[in-house]
Amino acid sequence: MTSRGFDEASGVRTVFKCENLQRGGAFKIRGASNFILSLPRDALERGVVAFSSGNHAQAVAIAARFVGTPATLVMPSDAPRSKMEATRAQGASIVAYDRRRESREAIGERIASETGAVLVPPFDHPRIIAGQGTAALELLEGAPDLDAIIAPVGGGGLLSGCAIAARDMQPRIRIFGAEPELANDTFLSFQAGHRVEIPTPETIADGLRSPCPGEFTFPILRRLAEAILLVSEEEIRAAMRFLLARMKLLVEPSGAAAAAAVLHRKLPAGIRSAGVILSGGNLDLEALPGLLGLLPNQD
Amino acid sequence: MTSRGFDEASGVRTVFKCENLQRGGAFKIRGASNFILSLPRDALERGVVAFSSGNHAQAVAIAARFVGTPATLVMPSDAPRSKMEATRAQGASIVAYDRRRESREAIGERIASETGAVLVPPFDHPRIIAGQGTAALELLEGAPDLDAIIAPVGGGGLLSGCAIAARDMQPRIRIFGAEPELANDTFLSFQAGHRVEIPTPETIADGLRSPCPGEFTFPILRRLAEAILLVSEEEIRAAMRFLLARMKLLVEPSGAAAAAAVLHRKLPAGIRSAGVILSGGNLDLEALPGLLGLLPNQD
Repeated sequence: MTSRGFDEASGVRTVFKCENLQRGGAFKIRGASNFILSLPRDALERGVVAFSSGNHAQAVAIAARFVGTPATLVMPSDAPRSKMEATRAQGASIVAYDRRRESREAIGERIASETGAVLVPPFDHPRIIAGQGTAALELLEGAPDLDAIIAPVGGGGLLSGCAIAARDMQPRIRIFGAEPELANDTFLSFQAGHRVEIPTPETIADGLRSPCPGEFTFPILRRLAEAILLVSEEEIRAAMRFLLARMKLLVEPSGAAAAAAVLHRKLPAGIRSAGVILSGGNLDLEALPGLLGLLPNQD
Repeated sequence: MTSRGFDEASGVRTVFKCENLQRGGAFKIRGASNFILSLPRDALERGVVAFSSGNHAQAVAIAARFVGTPATLVMPSDAPRSKMEATRAQGASIVAYDRRRESREAIGERIASETGAVLVPPFDHPRIIAGQGTAALELLEGAPDLDAIIAPVGGGGLLSGCAIAARDMQPRIRIFGAEPELANDTFLSFQAGHRVEIPTPETIADGLRSPCPGEFTFPILRRLAEAILLVSEEEIRAAMRFLLARMKLLVEPSGAAAAAAVLHRKLPAGIRSAGVILSGGNLDLEALPGLLGLLPNQD
């Protein structure tokens, strides 16, 4: 999708990959499907388990249902209700946990060892990374002459997959990540030259709260991504407002991070065209007025 | 666009024509462009004038700018601010009027006679109707095997144009209009067998507040449309919520009327697939919480 209004506001000719319109409302179905469809039959019989703030959970639930394997999802108890309901609607079991006190990894691994279910990692696995990269593949098939591609960074699965796919298709394309200032673990890791872990971030971008880039994703990002661009919470809100008011698209805070970076002109000068991944659109409508910074309406 | 969620909720396989993503945020650019691009050169030199609650105004402003002719828009003073601003941003002059006390037709005609500008009618003209019909043409080119097509009805320009185009492409397709209960002038006109005028409607669907079907549009609708389906204000709100939460699309109240009719199962039994025109997406974000019936958020 393109938008003259966005191009004028950002100064960059922008092509959007609308993963908010994707099955499950986010790019996550790409990696989850690739991972689950690659499992051997005996593994599928034991089921799958995953931990996720929401979009990965929905994606795993959809892909598991598609192949007929049971799915258990470990989700933070404060995840957007819409994400929990959508996951449950796919027939998956949900185990809620306290994001500040409990380790979702530990819970997920306990369930995996007790049931024999296969853990579907949220981002840090070659098959997940490869799946997410198909977003860039499709984007560049439709718009082959872009100077740059930019995607939000949580654990780095989307960006690392997109970086591999994009560079393969177009060796000189420049790769950027967008990360909330409040969840700047990958930015700090780039500065340090090694993976840095930060306390659980409190950004509104709930899909980007991973405290540390992955073992697989970080080396890929270091090699292929030019920079991680930071966006403030208000810049994310402003991008969400722009996408909604001008482009009529509901994009969740995490999904708007890359658009926010372009809109607020964080790309280096000289980049005249960019592919922006709007990575997801799932949020509770009840939270929307607050997220958009709208005053209560007297209607 | 399609949505499994919508198909499940409505019981109808639905293909959406997303005119909210159209240039100017609504289908109106189709008719306005067709009309203005058909004007002789000497008429273009004198300029164009139009009266509109918003989307037609924006469309005329865009089309006028495209051909380089000055545009004056007569808009109700309580039109959504976003529509007025977008119209002004296209370089058009705006004349505001009181929707309850003044006649926009009279103001528009006075400006036309004083300046020699050509009045671009909002709906009741063959070139406007023909232009709007291209929405159905494109919809059916992409989805040729639909049982029915349904569009919102204000003055009837969109529905009559779509009816002509759809029947030409697919002679057995069934045609329906969707109208707010509070703005049921076309419904009443169908019952009466002649054009009925009602007091200025107060529906949230500000684009459907025309009090009477058109001289050109009504005979076309009578001949080609099977029925006008009525939707309540709450049904419109519920459709807007569904389109936003599940399909990630911002659709204005007027634009959601046809989707509301399908979602609330107003189509006759036996219709298994339908093309639904989401006719526009322009609204003030500040009004969104009220329109969606959301409680003020404590975020």
